[in-house]
Amino acid sequence: MIKATIITIGDELLIGQVIDTNSAWMAQQLNKAGIPVLRRVAVGDRYQEIWQSLDEESAKADIILLTGGLGPTADDITKPLLCDYFNGKMITHEGALANVTHLFENVFKRPLTPRNIKQAEVPDTCTVLINPRGTAPGMWFEKDGKIFVSMPGVPHEMKGLMEEEVIPQLQKRFSLPYITHRTVITFGIGESMLADKIQDFEEALPAHIKLAYLPNYGIVRLRLTTTGENKENTDQEVDRLSAELQELTKEHLIHHEDEPMEKILARLLVSQNSTVATAESCTGGYISHLLTSIPGSSAFYKGSIIAYSNELKTDLLKVSNQTLRNEGAVSEAVVTAMAEGLLHAVNANYAIAVSGIMGPDGGSPEKPVGSVWIAVGNADKLISRCFHFRFDRAKNIQLTALNALNMLREFIKQQS
Amino acid sequence: MIKATIITIGDELLIGQVIDTNSAWMAQQLNKAGIPVLRRVAVGDRYQEIWQSLDEESAKADIILLTGGLGPTADDITKPLLCDYFNGKMITHEGALANVTHLFENVFKRPLTPRNIKQAEVPDTCTVLINPRGTAPGMWFEKDGKIFVSMPGVPHEMKGLMEEEVIPQLQKRFSLPYITHRTVITFGIGESMLADKIQDFEEALPAHIKLAYLPNYGIVRLRLTTTGENKENTDQEVDRLSAELQELTKEHLIHHEDEPMEKILARLLVSQNSTVATAESCTGGYISHLLTSIPGSSAFYKGSIIAYSNELKTDLLKVSNQTLRNEGAVSEAVVTAMAEGLLHAVNANYAIAVSGIMGPDGGSPEKPVGSVWIAVGNADKLISRCFHFRFDRAKNIQLTALNALNMLREFIKQQS
Repeated sequence: MIKATIITIGDELLIGQVIDTNSAWMAQQLNKAGIPVLRRVAVGDRYQEIWQSLDEESAKADIILLTGGLGPTADDITKPLLCDYFNGKMITHEGALANVTHLFENVFKRPLTPRNIKQAEVPDTCTVLINPRGTAPGMWFEKDGKIFVSMPGVPHEMKGLMEEEVIPQLQKRFSLPYITHRTVITFGIGESMLADKIQDFEEALPAHIKLAYLPNYGIVRLRLTTTGENKENTDQEVDRLSAELQELTKEHLIHHEDEPMEKILARLLVSQNSTVATAESCTGGYISHLLTSIPGSSAFYKGSIIAYSNELKTDLLKVSNQTLRNEGAVSEAVVTAMAEGLLHAVNANYAIAVSGIMGPDGGSPEKPVGSVWIAVGNADKLISRCFHFRFDRAKNIQLTALNALNMLREFIKQQS
Repeated sequence: MIKATIITIGDELLIGQVIDTNSAWMAQQLNKAGIPVLRRVAVGDRYQEIWQSLDEESAKADIILLTGGLGPTADDITKPLLCDYFNGKMITHEGALANVTHLFENVFKRPLTPRNIKQAEVPDTCTVLINPRGTAPGMWFEKDGKIFVSMPGVPHEMKGLMEEEVIPQLQKRFSLPYITHRTVITFGIGESMLADKIQDFEEALPAHIKLAYLPNYGIVRLRLTTTGENKENTDQEVDRLSAELQELTKEHLIHHEDEPMEKILARLLVSQNSTVATAESCTGGYISHLLTSIPGSSAFYKGSIIAYSNELKTDLLKVSNQTLRNEGAVSEAVVTAMAEGLLHAVNANYAIAVSGIMGPDGGSPEKPVGSVWIAVGNADKLISRCFHFRFDRAKNIQLTALNALNMLREFIKQQS
């Protein structure tokens, strides 16, 4: 089977200044095209180390994809290094130059400098992949039967080159197998209990099908992975196993596809032609952000009142001062009043309201950091629940949002 | 110099199901402790490949940190592999068992199963690092003068082990140098123009100081990195150079520390004892989320009205139907009215209002996808500006938020 390695170049990765999101996206695309990724390697902007990684990775994989180090500044050394590695000499590529000129004249609207023009220089031993989104062209090299493709690290430039050039050309070159995954999502059951529950299923799996557990703070994703020559047969077998797995986990099953909770809820709302609004205190707009990160969210999302201060809880959501004083902002009475106030202020079918203490400060012995009240429901009925998370601020916010979305998902399911 | 490599284990990384955020955090901590990271490698859950990576990476680095593959399920093979690699046999570790028992009894409040108890088994050739946050203990091995530490992949468990065990023990063992970075953040100037501007400075830098450019959609971070024996002298030299760099880039300088825009604005607001609120349409709560991701944000953030639908723009922000009809939701008149309405509804010193078309759908020839109007200001004065972003939905939302926060930062600076 044809295999790939991804090499990411840049000191920023080795000092932790940047999180590498490119590799995950590239790995997904390669997988979809039938090319498994063997390894991912990050190296610094150092000549000797990049060179060595090219030697090492091409000894293991057939395709080596590189990103990074193609900028116009002195710390970008990928291009001269590749020129040496593939015994070339630098030439100005006419197509790349036309692209750079066009970008500066028509898109960036800035004068073209010698440094920009140099971006159109490439080793004469590569095939240029024109990058319409940026000044650094992609470069395709071949050596000893191995393919090396260098791309810029700017995400949308890399993505454009992958989709328009790299993947189509690899598909043309090789006869690739069909790799596919099925993911079943469970919630509220630990990884080890789940493993006990599906032990017989797991042991009976054919050798060519791999089962993986991906636990993540209450959610466990179970992934079946398989490879075959024929799409139809491969899909049929893995769909049958996925159905079996869904049946075995049905008490904890929340979805049969690898989708985030907000998409699962959005799909449910759209299927009912319903809308939602949120009244957020401790999540500070994060639930609203998750829902509006989905294209076309205006079909199911109306808006939110982010009542972070108590003032806004009383002014905009009509929570009474007395309730706030007697019960405290993090209480069942307050989240319920927030949800009610929201449904009065905003014409939506469903409401989500949250109030909690996300940390690091603000906790008390009775209401420690991580305490959260969530209410969900509609004009007829509201349900509420208290949670205690025990992580850092960012994770507590994420978990509050996840559980709030899931509570509404369950509420809607139970109504219908 | 003592050097480290980070090996991350898990098929989910090679199919792109998960983004690796652990490595960046680990690299930061190692750097702070004076240990540069040489490489980061991700490998799948495959015995032979993990084994080979241990051989290869320990030939290059002194310290090999591993995460992942320590769960209680069949796809977790790191522990048995390490047992073989370091010629051990599996024994139950009393401290680890006591920890697992405590967690199930007092924290998870679930029955302890044989599978959980097995989590307390470790190779007898390792030193156990107790993990109070989870069932998988950390394991410290030594071989041929190299140190190998295996940790679980669950972020808060790994972080706890790094902070409480791994870093302190490495600091005790080695006499480590002082590594430090200074980052200067610019906005609104391209990487190549910036490079031209600071070319003399860059060429005159001493050999032991490295300058890196990190461009990211309008922001360019310039990072100076240096290593020394003595903290005071090292800091002095790099602070002097950073000041020089700030002077050279002052027209475009927005900050002299590597902090996200929301923190820069938050610091400014707190220093003035001022507060902000937001009226968001197209960003759907993302600006609010960024501001409330900062601990203690209630000191400067009041709340928001996320008026995603036009209904909410009229009902809650009092934008007139006529303005919406005549000008369209994405217009200077509407964002200005949103900001005014917000300052009436919410008792905050400053307002941010945004309305735009984030895509992929909803664009028109006059207002293509990526068109955004932003207004910022206070009760006395509002300023507004139109932007045209040309990326995907997620990036357009991020850029709108970034520019809105920066517009308010500039507005406040000009007022004072």
